Amino acid sequence: MDQLKDKLRSNNVNKLDYQLSLEDMPTQWFNFFPHLPKPLPPVRDNGKRSTLEISQLIRPKILLEQNAPKENWIDIPEEVINKLIMCGRPTPLRRALSLEKHLKTPARIYFKREDTMATGSFKLSTAVAQAYYAKQEGREILISETGAGQWGMSVALVSQMFGLDARIFMARCSLEQKPYRQHYMKMLGCEVYPSPSTKTECGKELLLQTPGHPGSIGSAISEAIENALDTPGSAYLSGSNVNHVHLHQTLLGLEVKQQLSMAGESNVDHLVACVSGGSNLCGFMMPFLPEKNSGAKIDMLGVESTASPRLTQGTYEYCRSDVAGYTPEVLSHSMGESYIPAPVHVGGLRNHNSSPLVSLLCREGILRAEALDEFNAFKAGQIMLKTEGILVAPESSHAVAAAIDLAEKARIENKESVIVFLASGNGFLDLQGYNDVLNN
Amino acid sequence: MDQLKDKLRSNNVNKLDYQLSLEDMPTQWFNFFPHLPKPLPPVRDNGKRSTLEISQLIRPKILLEQNAPKENWIDIPEEVINKLIMCGRPTPLRRALSLEKHLKTPARIYFKREDTMATGSFKLSTAVAQAYYAKQEGREILISETGAGQWGMSVALVSQMFGLDARIFMARCSLEQKPYRQHYMKMLGCEVYPSPSTKTECGKELLLQTPGHPGSIGSAISEAIENALDTPGSAYLSGSNVNHVHLHQTLLGLEVKQQLSMAGESNVDHLVACVSGGSNLCGFMMPFLPEKNSGAKIDMLGVESTASPRLTQGTYEYCRSDVAGYTPEVLSHSMGESYIPAPVHVGGLRNHNSSPLVSLLCREGILRAEALDEFNAFKAGQIMLKTEGILVAPESSHAVAAAIDLAEKARIENKESVIVFLASGNGFLDLQGYNDVLNN
Repeated sequence: MDQLKDKLRSNNVNKLDYQLSLEDMPTQWFNFFPHLPKPLPPVRDNGKRSTLEISQLIRPKILLEQNAPKENWIDIPEEVINKLIMCGRPTPLRRALSLEKHLKTPARIYFKREDTMATGSFKLSTAVAQAYYAKQEGREILISETGAGQWGMSVALVSQMFGLDARIFMARCSLEQKPYRQHYMKMLGCEVYPSPSTKTECGKELLLQTPGHPGSIGSAISEAIENALDTPGSAYLSGSNVNHVHLHQTLLGLEVKQQLSMAGESNVDHLVACVSGGSNLCGFMMPFLPEKNSGAKIDMLGVESTASPRLTQGTYEYCRSDVAGYTPEVLSHSMGESYIPAPVHVGGLRNHNSSPLVSLLCREGILRAEALDEFNAFKAGQIMLKTEGILVAPESSHAVAAAIDLAEKARIENKESVIVFLASGNGFLDLQGYNDVLNN
Repeated sequence: MDQLKDKLRSNNVNKLDYQLSLEDMPTQWFNFFPHLPKPLPPVRDNGKRSTLEISQLIRPKILLEQNAPKENWIDIPEEVINKLIMCGRPTPLRRALSLEKHLKTPARIYFKREDTMATGSFKLSTAVAQAYYAKQEGREILISETGAGQWGMSVALVSQMFGLDARIFMARCSLEQKPYRQHYMKMLGCEVYPSPSTKTECGKELLLQTPGHPGSIGSAISEAIENALDTPGSAYLSGSNVNHVHLHQTLLGLEVKQQLSMAGESNVDHLVACVSGGSNLCGFMMPFLPEKNSGAKIDMLGVESTASPRLTQGTYEYCRSDVAGYTPEVLSHSMGESYIPAPVHVGGLRNHNSSPLVSLLCREGILRAEALDEFNAFKAGQIMLKTEGILVAPESSHAVAAAIDLAEKARIENKESVIVFLASGNGFLDLQGYNDVLNN
């Protein structure tokens, strides 16, 4: 017994989790924009109605400022910190010892556990900040879209935390595939509409054009913005794509850097995340940009879904993120505004375009992209569950698959690579999807 | 910024979680049997076949010894400790500041977060130990029953961790209500059968007697034991009721005691847990037994479901835990062996009897029992989600409801009670149940 206590004391038992104490958690967001090789290209305001004006109406003012922050570090308000702690920040970084053993790889694999957040995904970290600023401005109802539902769950939860109402437009096919996420939002008193819906004009039009339209993040964004414009006292929030979201998510990478240092890793070879709008990827990887700019060989890899392979097969062009023209035209890798992705279970990766930031990172060779089909991603998720005992979200399973590939390459090359991937969410509410894909 | 860092350093931000470091985690199970007011009554071995002999055939030998341990403290094997860490031990104790505020109570409410375990419930802690001993004896397949599925998920996961196979009989109504739990087990390569099934003789008989039989933990136990007897190299594991399970779960209470001390609490007024077989309750509360025996006024409260109100309305009598007569007759509070509980969503509370230990605790006045209906429990789960942001399992929501009642009583009496309840699991996979009960 004393022997075992000694082992626990000297960390000779399996040390898996690297966890920050509260006093070490980041209290500022990292402004990575000055570290980009070139500024983000300007947006085009070509709509029937000024998208800039729309944005100023529906978004809290300070969030617009945070799209292009002036300071290098941006203080996080104390109330936001407190709510982030309540939601599960800081999250652990775990060494994937069992996965390494299974793969017989000399690589050291770590994963950031955003699956431990209260709603089961990383989305909460920006939801808290956005709801806080909305409340500060006296807004009373939060309106947003959601794809697979992780973002919607987060908006629903923070609305309660700040005593606000919430209304969510959710891509119809995702809502039908993942009814539990809708149940969760409704338990929190949140209104949920399948998109396209008959609640908005643009929803009605989409249904007229394409009866049985499965919906997409693009259709849901359009409906949420139209509804926010029509709802006095509302704030429109974004779950991804826009700059202030990427900024808020830098907490992920800032934590990881400290945690890698706790684990005794001075270098990292590969950072891997799934990518759509890319806020999980950017929040995770952008804090490593200064090191990369200083010559550190860090391979940044984004894994998208073959259901919408914008970065690997799309066109770099001006297009909108929504289908109805409420958002500005942004220069981004896109499948085209009219592209309807197949109704895969990976609802979080179904955007028709990526964000300007992710697209720029790809164009400039900072970010490497791969596209992966659902079956192979889900198989990797199954390996992760069988070895590490952790069920990640279908989106995150894309990152797992790529990390496994890199670890196998390291085995062949007999190289002690350090691979860090992001478990952006948990997969408990996606078990129907896992079952459909793996067993049918 | 420096101010905020100072606040973080001095813990002036909301201190919510009390978490043990690895070196402080318990490395021994607590033998509470010597602290009981009287020994557990002997079992009766009246079956058509000796249940003692059955038990010796299907259960790992050391587990039978752990039903009546000789030492006061039982060393936990190092490999079990390592796997427990991987599964999420030690778990946090959280102060429910937001719930307190919502209730305007002077009471300090804490809850033990077994919802953070890898499978989403406390069941893993004994599953790891039982699988370890089964493997030590060269057994190759783990066979067990499950009610709501939390136990089955845990057996499925640990089978993978130890390189074993697994087979689970799950109460049919729970399987239909909670298909996600079945998907999870199958992802881990586990065989799952709805009970009653045609896989066993006793299953066939039950289906003949009662076509469309919804199943119960009792039917599933019978089938699992029969199947284990018929399967060479198998081990039969129990998720609750038996003494070695209660013993393994003492980790919960041992952790809580240390964590309350970290929180500066020298006394606790109320311990609250849901109860069926009672391993979550006993594991949580039995480590407090020495203090209670020394005169500390600790109110121990178990909350059962009105669907099977054994402790509040049942008879203290000899009866079996299974329906086919493979288990010994034990003296326990029971609704009768032929009682079929309504197919409520709270699958984990549907046993027709409680364990001998829980029943003895009630008889001796150590444990107080209340019965609660599903709707009121689920409403409490909703309050918990809205205030604390944590979705607990339907079973755990029974404990939440009772804790809320106690906190409201403390408000009326203006008393600074210390209330600790057990969040025995998370409710993500029970969202359909929550939705059905709360919205229909």
